[in-house]
Amino acid sequence: MTEPLWVGIDVGGTKVLAGQVDAAGRVRRTVRLRSGGPTGSVESLEQTLTEALELVCDGITPTGVGVAAAGLVDSSAESVAFAPHLPWRDADVRARLSTRWRLPVALENDATCALWAEVEHGALAGVDDALLVALGTGIGGGVLVGGQVVRGRGGMAGEFGHMQLVPDGRPCPCGLRGCWEQYSSGSALMAAAGERFPSGPAITEAARAGDRTALGALDEVGRWLGVGVANLVAALDPAVVVVGGGVSSAGDLLLGPADRALRTHLVAAAHREPPRWVVAHHAEHAGVVGAAVLARRLTQRVGSRSAPR
Amino acid sequence: MTEPLWVGIDVGGTKVLAGQVDAAGRVRRTVRLRSGGPTGSVESLEQTLTEALELVCDGITPTGVGVAAAGLVDSSAESVAFAPHLPWRDADVRARLSTRWRLPVALENDATCALWAEVEHGALAGVDDALLVALGTGIGGGVLVGGQVVRGRGGMAGEFGHMQLVPDGRPCPCGLRGCWEQYSSGSALMAAAGERFPSGPAITEAARAGDRTALGALDEVGRWLGVGVANLVAALDPAVVVVGGGVSSAGDLLLGPADRALRTHLVAAAHREPPRWVVAHHAEHAGVVGAAVLARRLTQRVGSRSAPR
Repeated sequence: MTEPLWVGIDVGGTKVLAGQVDAAGRVRRTVRLRSGGPTGSVESLEQTLTEALELVCDGITPTGVGVAAAGLVDSSAESVAFAPHLPWRDADVRARLSTRWRLPVALENDATCALWAEVEHGALAGVDDALLVALGTGIGGGVLVGGQVVRGRGGMAGEFGHMQLVPDGRPCPCGLRGCWEQYSSGSALMAAAGERFPSGPAITEAARAGDRTALGALDEVGRWLGVGVANLVAALDPAVVVVGGGVSSAGDLLLGPADRALRTHLVAAAHREPPRWVVAHHAEHAGVVGAAVLARRLTQRVGSRSAPR
Repeated sequence: MTEPLWVGIDVGGTKVLAGQVDAAGRVRRTVRLRSGGPTGSVESLEQTLTEALELVCDGITPTGVGVAAAGLVDSSAESVAFAPHLPWRDADVRARLSTRWRLPVALENDATCALWAEVEHGALAGVDDALLVALGTGIGGGVLVGGQVVRGRGGMAGEFGHMQLVPDGRPCPCGLRGCWEQYSSGSALMAAAGERFPSGPAITEAARAGDRTALGALDEVGRWLGVGVANLVAALDPAVVVVGGGVSSAGDLLLGPADRALRTHLVAAAHREPPRWVVAHHAEHAGVVGAAVLARRLTQRVGSRSAPR
């Protein structure tokens, strides 16, 4: 019998990334396709997912498939309630894809998947209380409390990016103002660095070479990262804060200013040990690995239920 | 055999409140003594607790005693790490009081006790995901996730009052600026109402009689309550928000503006059901009842362990 494999599919506003993942959380093979964004049809998006699945499987039948969606997944993890960058609206995604593919399918929010990846195969092995803050276009968030991944009442926990850090602050596409992700994210980094840099990685590279504008931009985004994390630490007192997303590749250029701001803004900092900062182990594959972890948990649960006693 | 009773003792900066609590969470009898604040000695504070315990027991031997402390209780719930209004500093309170009283003693932060009171005998029966926000001098907080009371890595979860809502905002005695409790608490209510009112209850009474200054002050404090809660709801997506502390007696005069601000500031408000607001069932006795609940849980655990099989 061949080794069991799961597939994780990370569905973002502009790309679909599918990966074969083994039982140890290793990504064996990936396929990347473009997706149509919020204006495409649901059928066209699901056709793209199907293509990505077929290409990444390459003739192998996976044990199960996990789908990491850039959107709000409901409390039963069955449907996508809302996704600003995807066409799904209150869509019963899990059952429909499972029927279409004739495979067990797990569905979860992409940042929650990234948290699962770190819990099962990454920075959070053995950690019970942690936060994941993923700095991409916006902020994706995950909360681990007492060893449990927090989904909240409606499955919408972890929407850190839209915590208001500045009253009447910068406008956010979500319709609110002063949202954290307007001050600390990939987009915020681009805005802070001005127009000289084509991309976030270019800013990090320039900062490593000593460019003052780039260093200043990472310092500003890092400080706001620390301010927002201080608020979450006041509320939840985690042991570890995992920083993921593209911006996390800046490492200490980001986490240094973040840690200083955290220690400045954290209540009773002198009487406690602030949480440890860690860069996510799963960078661009976090959603894929986490979705595959959930597919594995689903199929193992199904397996143990149907096993003879 | 007489009915088992537990004692809860709520230890604040200016008063010690002890209560006999029965298995149904009913307070049978209370005793209130003044405490010496942070400048008194540890021995004098513990002597006051001992007196309160003897007076409230009135000859009955309780099954166990719970102590609700206005301070940061460590991860093992053994000691008070820091308490701005009490003399305890890294003090091994639980073991010392248990030895002194020759009784099982449970120790916990007062707001966490208030959450336990609502979970076991109050507004949170049957609720899995909730927040408690207690508006007193400052803000006390409690977090319930998946049916579990969250303590965090070091026991310091729930320090909502010192989340920064306003960058470079109002100074806070904690040393930080812009802390939530400077905008929404009993003290903030007094500040918002100006000098005409001798107390928070006087403001609520005047507001009920239509006084515009009093109504405006409750509106302002309520709005900031909603803004802070919106941030916590973005992170944790609870089903219920319990509002306790003295200010909560204002009821809808506070919760009306709070709910409007929550709906205005909550991400994806149109795609979710915001949490339900509830006034705490246990007003001034919340700490006493919650501490007694923890003493009961402790003694029942001890009891079941030592019971013959």
